[in-house]
Amino acid sequence: MHSIETVITPTLLSLYPLEGRTVVVIDVLRATTSICTALENGAAAVIPIADREEAKEMRDRGFLVASEREGLRLSFANFGNSPSEFTRERVFDEEIVYCTTNGTKTITQANAGESLFIGAFCNLTALANHLIEEMRHDLVLLCSGWMGRFNLEDTLFAGALAERLCESEVYKTECDSTKMAMDLWSIAKDDLTGYAEKAAHRKRLEGFGLRESFEDCMRIDTCSAVPQYCAGRILPTPLAKG
Amino acid sequence: MHSIETVITPTLLSLYPLEGRTVVVIDVLRATTSICTALENGAAAVIPIADREEAKEMRDRGFLVASEREGLRLSFANFGNSPSEFTRERVFDEEIVYCTTNGTKTITQANAGESLFIGAFCNLTALANHLIEEMRHDLVLLCSGWMGRFNLEDTLFAGALAERLCESEVYKTECDSTKMAMDLWSIAKDDLTGYAEKAAHRKRLEGFGLRESFEDCMRIDTCSAVPQYCAGRILPTPLAKG
Repeated sequence: MHSIETVITPTLLSLYPLEGRTVVVIDVLRATTSICTALENGAAAVIPIADREEAKEMRDRGFLVASEREGLRLSFANFGNSPSEFTRERVFDEEIVYCTTNGTKTITQANAGESLFIGAFCNLTALANHLIEEMRHDLVLLCSGWMGRFNLEDTLFAGALAERLCESEVYKTECDSTKMAMDLWSIAKDDLTGYAEKAAHRKRLEGFGLRESFEDCMRIDTCSAVPQYCAGRILPTPLAKG
Repeated sequence: MHSIETVITPTLLSLYPLEGRTVVVIDVLRATTSICTALENGAAAVIPIADREEAKEMRDRGFLVASEREGLRLSFANFGNSPSEFTRERVFDEEIVYCTTNGTKTITQANAGESLFIGAFCNLTALANHLIEEMRHDLVLLCSGWMGRFNLEDTLFAGALAERLCESEVYKTECDSTKMAMDLWSIAKDDLTGYAEKAAHRKRLEGFGLRESFEDCMRIDTCSAVPQYCAGRILPTPLAKG
């Protein structure tokens, strides 16, 4: 049996050893949902960048860039952070530089693990199946949170994923954070969108006119992509082992 | 209406401004439960000390000292960290120096607020009533956690307290952590001890032969004390205002 631990905000990351573990980075609203969507729709790779200035330079060098600040697309960027922007027409075969408030920073912080996957409700089943059938390491679920704090939506997804994993004979958890996440998910699962209404970031997005984008991010299993980060790039399918 | 925010571990404390706010420090297993019990049983004051060496020096100077490391009473100390040790016979009119793994460190870290109270299930109603009837500041519920990480039992109590406070017309919350805590409490409230079986620290305590101490800490409203920290001392009743 492999263990599951949940890091409910990247502020706590230094308390959890990553070496030899598989890490899943979660930023449901909205970076990891949008990254899965872009890769599902044929993007060749997503390049996560923590620094906005660096993202701007990549735009000047000809890359397609997705970037937002507090919910709004930055003027230099080709995309904001809504999954619906990443259509097949716009992303097929492209490499997309990605820079957002919380999620891409978390990805670049967390690459000390054995392997790093991207998770959101849109790829719940695909990711869970991959982790059960192929990976089989101890697991760290890393929530991006909001400005270093806890948020509801990322922990909800951690709970949903942990539930699936613990139903298999491959994983178990002794971690209080993971148990909390699973209990939260048990309350929310019958009406995810309804439950997530209470999330502070839902209100922020609605304030920016992005209600639809919030609802898109609550859809479960719209993607079969299992994006994996390696050497600076997120690729649409897991690397072959060996 | 005043706000409630919940800091689910002291590692996140720097993200929350304390100035002008009331802080409640929570360490259900077991420091804040035992401190309430000692003061309920007539202790004149509890002096929280973060540093073990300093606690030992205070013992040498003749103070009564409570100190543990990972559940076990230290050899130089008069008390461990079990509420049942702090009987009226042993504590009446005494000042007790208190030094534990997580809780007393949290208290000494959090004194930047307007006022600082000590909370645990044993004084839930007394504390809630005081905060509703007397205090009326924006509120920060500060969970002591475990070695810098989240734990279930402190967040459960934060949820229980937040529920009481939000039922009044005095407080409301827009904080994701507080909403999570309230939802966790909604699952646990009908059988607190049963729910708390899953807490990692329950298992640690049982490993030390402290099952009874765990159960004592899950009892609700055994105390009417509303301990307040001020200038290095925790006193059994709130300071007069003005």
